[in-house]
Amino acid sequence: MKKVCVLGTGSWGTALALSLAKNNFDVLMWSRREERAESINKNRENTEYLPGAVFPDNLNVTSDLDEAVKDSKIVVIAVPSQAVRGMCAKLKGKLTPDQIIVNVAKGLEKGTGKRLSEVCAEELPESKYVMLSGPSHAEEVAKDLPTTIVVSSENIEYAQIVQDAFMSPALRVYTNSDLIGVELGGALKNIIAFGAGICDGLGYGDNTKAALMTRGITEISRLGVAMGAKAITFTGLSGIGDLIVTCTSMHSRNRRAGILIGEGYSVEETLEKVKMVVEGITATEVAHDVAEKLNIDMPITNAIYAVVHDGLEPYEGIKGLMTRNKKNEVEHIGL
Amino acid sequence: MKKVCVLGTGSWGTALALSLAKNNFDVLMWSRREERAESINKNRENTEYLPGAVFPDNLNVTSDLDEAVKDSKIVVIAVPSQAVRGMCAKLKGKLTPDQIIVNVAKGLEKGTGKRLSEVCAEELPESKYVMLSGPSHAEEVAKDLPTTIVVSSENIEYAQIVQDAFMSPALRVYTNSDLIGVELGGALKNIIAFGAGICDGLGYGDNTKAALMTRGITEISRLGVAMGAKAITFTGLSGIGDLIVTCTSMHSRNRRAGILIGEGYSVEETLEKVKMVVEGITATEVAHDVAEKLNIDMPITNAIYAVVHDGLEPYEGIKGLMTRNKKNEVEHIGL
Repeated sequence: MKKVCVLGTGSWGTALALSLAKNNFDVLMWSRREERAESINKNRENTEYLPGAVFPDNLNVTSDLDEAVKDSKIVVIAVPSQAVRGMCAKLKGKLTPDQIIVNVAKGLEKGTGKRLSEVCAEELPESKYVMLSGPSHAEEVAKDLPTTIVVSSENIEYAQIVQDAFMSPALRVYTNSDLIGVELGGALKNIIAFGAGICDGLGYGDNTKAALMTRGITEISRLGVAMGAKAITFTGLSGIGDLIVTCTSMHSRNRRAGILIGEGYSVEETLEKVKMVVEGITATEVAHDVAEKLNIDMPITNAIYAVVHDGLEPYEGIKGLMTRNKKNEVEHIGL
Repeated sequence: MKKVCVLGTGSWGTALALSLAKNNFDVLMWSRREERAESINKNRENTEYLPGAVFPDNLNVTSDLDEAVKDSKIVVIAVPSQAVRGMCAKLKGKLTPDQIIVNVAKGLEKGTGKRLSEVCAEELPESKYVMLSGPSHAEEVAKDLPTTIVVSSENIEYAQIVQDAFMSPALRVYTNSDLIGVELGGALKNIIAFGAGICDGLGYGDNTKAALMTRGITEISRLGVAMGAKAITFTGLSGIGDLIVTCTSMHSRNRRAGILIGEGYSVEETLEKVKMVVEGITATEVAHDVAEKLNIDMPITNAIYAVVHDGLEPYEGIKGLMTRNKKNEVEHIGL
């Protein structure tokens, strides 16, 4: 039985570990906290983050990183996006050249705005990097509800190895060689999810949300292409697919934060209530700055930026978007 | 005050008539039933199809088609898609060359599989035809909740006239010169909405639905391009935008019909319960036949076709889709 490891014991890491275990891998998860590793091992369940999914015998948890990584053909990094750099730093000197890293966090590094593949390459220059993304609530994957995801790498062979590892009748895995597009889709969609939340908080309906999502993915695609991505990727699982799941889910922190802003809470109050990093806000800042530099028209992102940074009333932001000049839908050919 | 008319008194026609009235047009709606025209006029409200929206003085209803059409710069056809041919036939000899027809029904003609612009051109060869589409629940438009729609015509100038007429701070109108794409998006998205309903009926989750929508629009786009549309249109308001609204709405007959099939009702039982034409089934048949003829790979459409026509169990249909050969996400470049 081949060994793989999953670093992190959040809900998504746990769901993916369960999927790999069902595919007959010997799976070792890693938690930095010894008590957590022991408690999950003993309970045979991650009661805190993915209650209800029973661990099979070939899925176990350790707090010893060396033990987790050793002989693992695939090393899944399943930590929050802002912890990816630290996790990669911890892996320095522990990897052998044949091991493949699979990052499943979506986002851009706060402060630098870097893609997580760039972050990983800085810490682990020689690593074989694969990004895993797509529309996937962990709870549904754990229940074997049909789900599709996408894996991407600069070297498509690495992506294919990961595709083979995860593929099952319940989890269909596509490859895509546009790593930048897959990364930017997963990160920038949070801008729109945050905006969709604002619309919900304002009491607007399905029409408004569909408009925001459609026009949002259009402008994100425009920016993505300028940043080196392929436009078609944004029409796929890591783009519109993930956006659909995020914008209709209450699990999304980005959407929840947006709802609070739309309801009239200040940014400070919202961040205090949500109690976690709101990726959508980081992504908005990065996208706004890059768009300004590259002279890309991003009206939705700029309106959200103004709401967050310049105290623009959300209602006024929407009004501004609705009363812009008349446009042809495909005026700016991003595709 | 310029005069326009709206033929039909359903919810969408009524919402659009209200929008035009708010933009200071003199709006005359037409009902083929005298009692209905009189009752709406008297109540100042379409109590049956759009209750709660009060008619202003410049919005009235007649059952006299000549009166409705006379001097109307814009003639909005707001009847069910299968009634468009009959409505166009009724208009024969009544139109002057300067009048613009705006069709707001989405679908393909049952039996012939023709787009509604083709149907209209057969009945009224000289007419100036504009299609209006996009993600828009009538109830939300009537409440002035921010909504975006798209208008398309072979002659972009006609579309721009219609854009000007409808555009308001609550209703943002885009133009798109890809008439075939806008028409096919609105018609074929019903296949996927029907399929999304089947997934919901089977008890699957958000992941499955997002997968179906993302991969669904990909294959529809593939077919659309072969039928003369531009791929980018399917990423827009009449494509993914409309699909998002339809797949998350209980108002959608297509989705409702799909849910019943997913729950185990037969096609006959479902059609009896829904009591109306299920556009998604018609669209599935047309798409299946055209795809076969043009040799286009449409796995989702074909699975739905097999469920409807060959008694394939919906559960088996999904299983078949999930266990297909491994794929690259953008293997078939439709875009």
